[in-house]
Amino acid sequence: MLYGSIEAGGTKFVCAVGNEDLEILHRESFPTTVPAETMAKVIAFFKKFETELVGIGIGSFGPIDIHEESPTYGYITSTPKLAWQNYDFVGAMKKEFSVPVAWTTDVNAAAYGEYVFGHGKGLDSVVYYTIGTGVGGGAIQKGQFVEGFSHPEMGHMLIVPHEDDSYKGNCPFHGNCLEGMAAGPAIEKRLGKKGADVPESDPFWTIEADYIAQCVYNTTLMLSPDVIILGGGVMKQQHMVKKVHEAFTNLMKGYVKTPSLDEYIVTPALEDNAGTMGCLALARKVALSA
Amino acid sequence: MLYGSIEAGGTKFVCAVGNEDLEILHRESFPTTVPAETMAKVIAFFKKFETELVGIGIGSFGPIDIHEESPTYGYITSTPKLAWQNYDFVGAMKKEFSVPVAWTTDVNAAAYGEYVFGHGKGLDSVVYYTIGTGVGGGAIQKGQFVEGFSHPEMGHMLIVPHEDDSYKGNCPFHGNCLEGMAAGPAIEKRLGKKGADVPESDPFWTIEADYIAQCVYNTTLMLSPDVIILGGGVMKQQHMVKKVHEAFTNLMKGYVKTPSLDEYIVTPALEDNAGTMGCLALARKVALSA
Repeated sequence: MLYGSIEAGGTKFVCAVGNEDLEILHRESFPTTVPAETMAKVIAFFKKFETELVGIGIGSFGPIDIHEESPTYGYITSTPKLAWQNYDFVGAMKKEFSVPVAWTTDVNAAAYGEYVFGHGKGLDSVVYYTIGTGVGGGAIQKGQFVEGFSHPEMGHMLIVPHEDDSYKGNCPFHGNCLEGMAAGPAIEKRLGKKGADVPESDPFWTIEADYIAQCVYNTTLMLSPDVIILGGGVMKQQHMVKKVHEAFTNLMKGYVKTPSLDEYIVTPALEDNAGTMGCLALARKVALSA
Repeated sequence: MLYGSIEAGGTKFVCAVGNEDLEILHRESFPTTVPAETMAKVIAFFKKFETELVGIGIGSFGPIDIHEESPTYGYITSTPKLAWQNYDFVGAMKKEFSVPVAWTTDVNAAAYGEYVFGHGKGLDSVVYYTIGTGVGGGAIQKGQFVEGFSHPEMGHMLIVPHEDDSYKGNCPFHGNCLEGMAAGPAIEKRLGKKGADVPESDPFWTIEADYIAQCVYNTTLMLSPDVIILGGGVMKQQHMVKKVHEAFTNLMKGYVKTPSLDEYIVTPALEDNAGTMGCLALARKVALSA
């Protein structure tokens, strides 16, 4: 018995299969090009395991249609990646594999991985952010994704520009929203080099930490979760979590008594496996409830 | 068979009893002074109906302890109203009445009222804000309050100061957070008169609408609810909803396709009864599940 996982990101697709204990047995990545090409590789990957496959979990870049009663349920909808606009992802998988398919956003899948296996284990309410090429967020409360007319798009929340930051932001919609100011491309355009090449001593990291702390502050006030997990490339800078803690404390000014910051604002326990583990766990959930 | 409702606000307590159909039969208000005085009136009110009372729903000003396993569950905790700090509200009611008691924030109760009887009826995900003496928010998804380590404190989210507004904000914690810039006292301190006396033509309302729209924008991105209900004194200005719609459209710039704004950003269907109706519905829920 095997579970399948598809982490469908804007740059690459990571496919994996796991056993009953959700141990990852095989994993392969394919570049995200056009559906015909990328999906052929995805389907070929899972065809090798078809006889044992009992469920597939997909965490996809978005926006996506998550409403089961909608005629376009399972589609990627208005993505700027034109080749993937209105692509029937779940339908493509269901056509090839007669197993239940779980369908959510890539960041929700990572949140679910941490909820089941990582820093959210045993907690009621978990929020996960990825701060990298873009900024995305997902929230889970008592096993349910926080959602309504659609899935959240937390990365585009408003932030207050830092007084020492003259950058105007690069979000094509909102300019200086969180993603426009704090995602990897904004760092690179602002400083002329990638974040990974910006030394710890650069004063910019104080500005970046302030933006991330504003996000964590708003999340605390809006959702009051048990834990906020910060993933993605920017948070691989080891010094960032502490800077975010400091900036968060300065913003909150003691108004809300959160759990200890070392347990409340953390990086992913599963590191880069959160998405795959979340998709496997969702595959198991959908298979068991089918 | 009667259900009891206590809307415990910072200015007044509204007590009510309703029948099986949650029709309000009796209602009385008492000023919020000190617990000994106010609660004596609350208890005397319900004693008149004690033989028929089967459950009580309380929506209280906060912060409050909502964790059932906590030793201070049912307490008002670190409120600036010193006489009510660490007050065991649920304990005081349970001591006098041997019926199940539901316990949540005042704004969650109003959200629940709209969820069961108002603009949230039949929807999965509802957010309610009150914009008056303070700003508070509550969210419900599939019958559960959105919460984690505590209840939300949405009114203190960060907002970007409007370019035509030089007011520095009056939140004692955060200065120019949403409550510090947009609640009734901030309007009065800024303009030298109460919001109710500021004419529709005053350009300030465009600024106020921008702040409320920032709140609605962030809420849309964080929770993606089915409806956002705006209550409280400020929204009694009939012209405000339309101004908020316009400001929201300007902020969102088409990024997220929300439901039609006339159905998505609305004032309470229950008007000032949302809190009482919510408490009655919570009383019924807790009585039926006891």
